[in-house]
Amino acid sequence: MKLALIGYGKVARAFARLLEKKRASYPFRIVGAHTLRHGTAIDPKGLAADPVFGPPVASVEEFLDRTRAEVALELTTLNPESGEPAISHIRAAFARGQHVITSNKGPVAFAYAELRDEAARAGVMFRHEAAVMDGTPVFNLVRNNLPGVEIKGFAGALNSTSKVVVQSMLKGRSFEEGVEDARALGVAEADASFDTEGWDSAAKAAALANVLMDARLTPHAVDRRGIGRLTPERLALLKASGKTVVLVSRARRTPAGVKLRVRAEVLPADDLLAAMYGTSNLLILDTDLMGEIGVFTLQPGLKQTAYGLFSDLVDIARG
Amino acid sequence: MKLALIGYGKVARAFARLLEKKRASYPFRIVGAHTLRHGTAIDPKGLAADPVFGPPVASVEEFLDRTRAEVALELTTLNPESGEPAISHIRAAFARGQHVITSNKGPVAFAYAELRDEAARAGVMFRHEAAVMDGTPVFNLVRNNLPGVEIKGFAGALNSTSKVVVQSMLKGRSFEEGVEDARALGVAEADASFDTEGWDSAAKAAALANVLMDARLTPHAVDRRGIGRLTPERLALLKASGKTVVLVSRARRTPAGVKLRVRAEVLPADDLLAAMYGTSNLLILDTDLMGEIGVFTLQPGLKQTAYGLFSDLVDIARG
Repeated sequence: MKLALIGYGKVARAFARLLEKKRASYPFRIVGAHTLRHGTAIDPKGLAADPVFGPPVASVEEFLDRTRAEVALELTTLNPESGEPAISHIRAAFARGQHVITSNKGPVAFAYAELRDEAARAGVMFRHEAAVMDGTPVFNLVRNNLPGVEIKGFAGALNSTSKVVVQSMLKGRSFEEGVEDARALGVAEADASFDTEGWDSAAKAAALANVLMDARLTPHAVDRRGIGRLTPERLALLKASGKTVVLVSRARRTPAGVKLRVRAEVLPADDLLAAMYGTSNLLILDTDLMGEIGVFTLQPGLKQTAYGLFSDLVDIARG
Repeated sequence: MKLALIGYGKVARAFARLLEKKRASYPFRIVGAHTLRHGTAIDPKGLAADPVFGPPVASVEEFLDRTRAEVALELTTLNPESGEPAISHIRAAFARGQHVITSNKGPVAFAYAELRDEAARAGVMFRHEAAVMDGTPVFNLVRNNLPGVEIKGFAGALNSTSKVVVQSMLKGRSFEEGVEDARALGVAEADASFDTEGWDSAAKAAALANVLMDARLTPHAVDRRGIGRLTPERLALLKASGKTVVLVSRARRTPAGVKLRVRAEVLPADDLLAAMYGTSNLLILDTDLMGEIGVFTLQPGLKQTAYGLFSDLVDIARG
């Protein structure tokens, strides 16, 4: 199966290394990579993991045409306010009869229902396991393992920076020092307020709700409040009474539609949602037939995100 | 798809109710039920959820022949020391070209590799999602969503009675009162020492390791120590230092093969494995490509076990 990669940053490189490792059992081949920064590399026989880039072709459309790939992987950087240009890249791939995998939450958070329907009309598949939980099976879990189940709501501890900031403040450091700690761990966005004010959690809530609950919402519809007002003093008081604070993304189905909320919630220190440190993430699904069921991954990083793309690829190859 | 049920207790009844609810989308039909206690009921047009039983046919073999079912569900009571008679029932179904689903951990804990190979030779499927974690996707999670992943080990809080006993003792009740609490909740086995001495946890460890790690072990190979020596006084001391006790099933791959261990482990009170109450169960898988990843279900009961059977059935119908 031939693959075209739009974007070639850290996730793409980790994915290329994983493919090399698995080549014997899984004959996937990256035949093209295209980035604004490095240029374009195309080789029908397969690119090396560290490809030599030539000048960029004129457009993503031309790139996709020239690769003749069966699957396009959208791995560009997110514009958190619109989901573009990833959404346009995905549409360009659908128009060429190519399956699409993305690790980008933007398209799923901003335009899932349309993209899902366009993929169906084009007779191709659209997969995005790595977009919300770094490769933890959540979309594929519900699709493959929970047939006939209705998702009534969810609660997730999905943002890394806020966890690091709270944990630093619990050790007596200031909010700003906590943000520095998150930067040092490489988990904070360039603009850390994107994390601490709950935008990242809101985008993840919208993405999950759009896929699992057909919510047809965008991150702008999320009732959102971040951890910006938290102080080490307030956290110390909470800790003394056996409590802590977690930035939680919640969804629930109501007669008026799906409601999404992101809050810095005060929870018992031994709450399941409070048991996640650093990049660890956890999601509890509230379902009709299985009650409350959940998944988590401890300290995921690039390796897990790359695996999320790989698991989508195998799903497409099987299907 | 026509189903034959061997055993017709609480799980079978919950499963029959679930099938009735899902009839419109999933055309599965129970055409036979056979129990030592109630007798045999066979109707090619489908049994009612509360079927009228006639006298028992002479054997499970005769029952399976007469139902002409495509799938046999093995739902009898476990003999914890051998996995029989469930193993023989499953073999009888394979010999008739019938797929098998069981909610019984015995066959998976005592004879998984042989049964898997026999199913392959017979060209049928063998599924057992409900056998270890009440329907929480674990076997299907690894099979469907973690392609190419090697399971290097696991740690699970899988036994309900021991959780209830520890939680009761933390409230100052005695060990015996804790066992009574577990009985009142309907989670303790008839012989509660089966739970408290770690036999249940050992059977679950062997079942998981046999399927996920090709361990080819039985529960007798598990290095096992239960919670029998715990006292409310010891727990009170641990609690004062922020700790608790959890009966944990662990596996790890070593150069000398897979090692299995069940222990009453002293853990921090906010440990993930300690966050499960009552029947809630949680499993952490240690993997090569996804690091540490896990699943849990909060307070599952018959409904979830019945759904585990259903999810296996859909998997067979798809496959």
